[in-house]
Amino acid sequence: MINSDFNGNAPDKSELALLLIYTINDFEFDGGEDLLRFALPAAERIADLKKRARLAQLPIIYVNDNFGKWRSDFKRIVAHCLEDDVRGRSIVKLLEPDDDDYFVLKPKHSGFFSTSLDLVLEYLGTRTLVLTGFAGNNCVLFTANDAYMRDYKLIVPSDCIASENEVDNDNALKQMQQVLKAEIRPSVEIEFPRPNEKEQRQAARS
Amino acid sequence: MINSDFNGNAPDKSELALLLIYTINDFEFDGGEDLLRFALPAAERIADLKKRARLAQLPIIYVNDNFGKWRSDFKRIVAHCLEDDVRGRSIVKLLEPDDDDYFVLKPKHSGFFSTSLDLVLEYLGTRTLVLTGFAGNNCVLFTANDAYMRDYKLIVPSDCIASENEVDNDNALKQMQQVLKAEIRPSVEIEFPRPNEKEQRQAARS
Amino acid sequence: MINSDFNGNAPDKSELALLLIYTINDFEFDGGEDLLRFALPAAERIADLKKRARLAQLPIIYVNDNFGKWRSDFKRIVAHCLEDDVRGRSIVKLLEPDDDDYFVLKPKHSGFFSTSLDLVLEYLGTRTLVLTGFAGNNCVLFTANDAYMRDYKLIVPSDCIASENEVDNDNALKQMQQVLKAEIRPSVEIEFPRPNEKEQRQAARS
Amino acid sequence: MINSDFNGNAPDKSELALLLIYTINDFEFDGGEDLLRFALPAAERIADLKKRARLAQLPIIYVNDNFGKWRSDFKRIVAHCLEDDVRGRSIVKLLEPDDDDYFVLKPKHSGFFSTSLDLVLEYLGTRTLVLTGFAGNNCVLFTANDAYMRDYKLIVPSDCIASENEVDNDNALKQMQQVLKAEIRPSVEIEFPRPNEKEQRQAARS
Repeated sequence: MINSDFNGNAPDKSELALLLIYTINDFEFDGGEDLLRFALPAAERIADLKKRARLAQLPIIYVNDNFGKWRSDFKRIVAHCLEDDVRGRSIVKLLEPDDDDYFVLKPKHSGFFSTSLDLVLEYLGTRTLVLTGFAGNNCVLFTANDAYMRDYKLIVPSDCIASENEVDNDNALKQMQQVLKAEIRPSVEIEFPRPNEKEQRQAARS
Repeated sequence: MINSDFNGNAPDKSELALLLIYTINDFEFDGGEDLLRFALPAAERIADLKKRARLAQLPIIYVNDNFGKWRSDFKRIVAHCLEDDVRGRSIVKLLEPDDDDYFVLKPKHSGFFSTSLDLVLEYLGTRTLVLTGFAGNNCVLFTANDAYMRDYKLIVPSDCIASENEVDNDNALKQMQQVLKAEIRPSVEIEFPRPNEKEQRQAARS
Repeated sequence: MINSDFNGNAPDKSELALLLIYTINDFEFDGGEDLLRFALPAAERIADLKKRARLAQLPIIYVNDNFGKWRSDFKRIVAHCLEDDVRGRSIVKLLEPDDDDYFVLKPKHSGFFSTSLDLVLEYLGTRTLVLTGFAGNNCVLFTANDAYMRDYKLIVPSDCIASENEVDNDNALKQMQQVLKAEIRPSVEIEFPRPNEKEQRQAARS
Repeated sequence: MINSDFNGNAPDKSELALLLIYTINDFEFDGGEDLLRFALPAAERIADLKKRARLAQLPIIYVNDNFGKWRSDFKRIVAHCLEDDVRGRSIVKLLEPDDDDYFVLKPKHSGFFSTSLDLVLEYLGTRTLVLTGFAGNNCVLFTANDAYMRDYKLIVPSDCIASENEVDNDNALKQMQQVLKAEIRPSVEIEFPRPNEKEQRQAARS
């Protein structure tokens, strides 16, 4: 069993976390080409956002399908997307996980269903999630629904999610805004606290 | 999301599965030396049982702690136990996972808590679990409790679990037998159906 | 603990079940008046559908908010809606639960979150859900999402759900059809198997 | 869906809660007579403890089997135990729920499995559970296991649980003490904070 200090030398506690949902993805499925057209520019925005999140020392959590069927691991999934001649290669190159990123493998649409995500977030002390990834009207929306039911506050950078067409993507954004009370805005308008501010606030609390 | 054929070319459907609970373990914790004394002979029995389970084409599922803290993966945990000078090395050598074994990383004591185990078993059509591993009065017992609540039938080979002392191990076996209705018997007395029998029975059903 | 025959003398096993989601509701909340305007005609269609479901001996399951705050029970919630001068009274009169209906109290939006619904359906052997109730773009959609992730087949009678406005209701129906693969059609076009057909099919199987 | 103030006028927030596990029980099952012999004196101790918990304004939560099979409610279960000629009547008389007690119906052995218990405790801000009820080596132990995995601190008054025989009860207490780190002591040695102390401490925190 895990002891309470499981997150060791990492950004131990953080009210805010960045989620990358199903970004490590070969796009080799029906509709994958349509999705890719919108996903590629979104991936560039996500890469920028991830850089800023790292500087702010926020936890970065890859929430990804285990398309290796409970036998292969996340590293092998990444390798498959980078090394084989698959549609998603350029996206995975942009968003390759770093060694101290977290990852949670999900068997179904929502990142919370049959996974440790809720527990990871609880140990990190995270209450606000920045949601990015694909598809906006599917895995992102499912994860957003489950996050809202678990009382997380949601921020969704509108240029960091993508769906197979714009109408469905807009409807997903609208649903997240109206029903899930998510803050929707372009990624450049999302500011992360600078690490020293964060520490100062934490120090002030204790 | 996973499609219904996620388990691909593997022992697709099987009423019976073998679970190895927290066997990939460096034993570098308080009481680890005591546990190791009983765990080493048990690991030899588990290795034999696993060989027979492979011949019978049963799914073999490693249910293991993620002591890499949601950052490292199962392969890296195995490597750590094999390559570093840790107490558990000889056990992990005996029980090194094969490529087509399944693995489920658990964050807490029970293999079912905040994991995909129940879903994996549902897709495999498994209803009976053969439980082995460490510690008998802790992770094995927690997993057995949760399996029983989910209506799985339990078989526990008495020489394939180990605890820090014999009294606690015996009490755990007694609890599994009396309350959880587990079949308890030595591993040599557990017979797996031969694959062709299995297929014949499956064919008879459909 | 419950024994395996918990559902006793009731429609014991049924592939199909009718869900009434948050229909026992005082409508005394912001937007309740808007919702009521669409919910009242829907409630009449639900009442008809429920009558036919009873004739077909299908399980009827009320999936309802526990707005009594974990202290009052379902009967008291029904009584509050019928006896006090609340907006929802006419709807609850139409849809008053019968003694052999099932009920599941949900604390949040989805009927599956922190409830026994999945277990009740498992014991009933139900794999297809007919979803009705309020609000279509909220509790019904949340429940539909969770049902889909758990591999239930969904049928949604389009005139048996209602939301605060028609655009949101239509978007919810579209999301259920496109992403959740739900069958959407008017309630009059949903036919339930006659009980003797059902028994004949069950007999044929065993 | 429930809003954040669902617990209204009740002991809104409390670090500590008293759980009564499967105390509303007709004892009409195999072994019920044996259990009753030990359960009756325990029920007297629980009744005393409950009185003191009420004075201390702690939340009191009945965690009970729904032996009405998802059709009857808690009030009807209480009535059945009080009005019909059942073995458990004298116990239920001692432990009859009050109007502002909470109740959670569990379908299986653990109070946390397929129920809202974890959510109720989260909203109450409860982190320490005082566990009482029957049977000590079954529903109480299952609930204790699940509570421990969810990081609750456990206090078990040794004279407020009962099993069918003393050996099994003692083993359950030992398991809770050793593995689940529960505090085990006679109920008279458990002191609850006086309400004004509680408020003072809460005030000091904010």
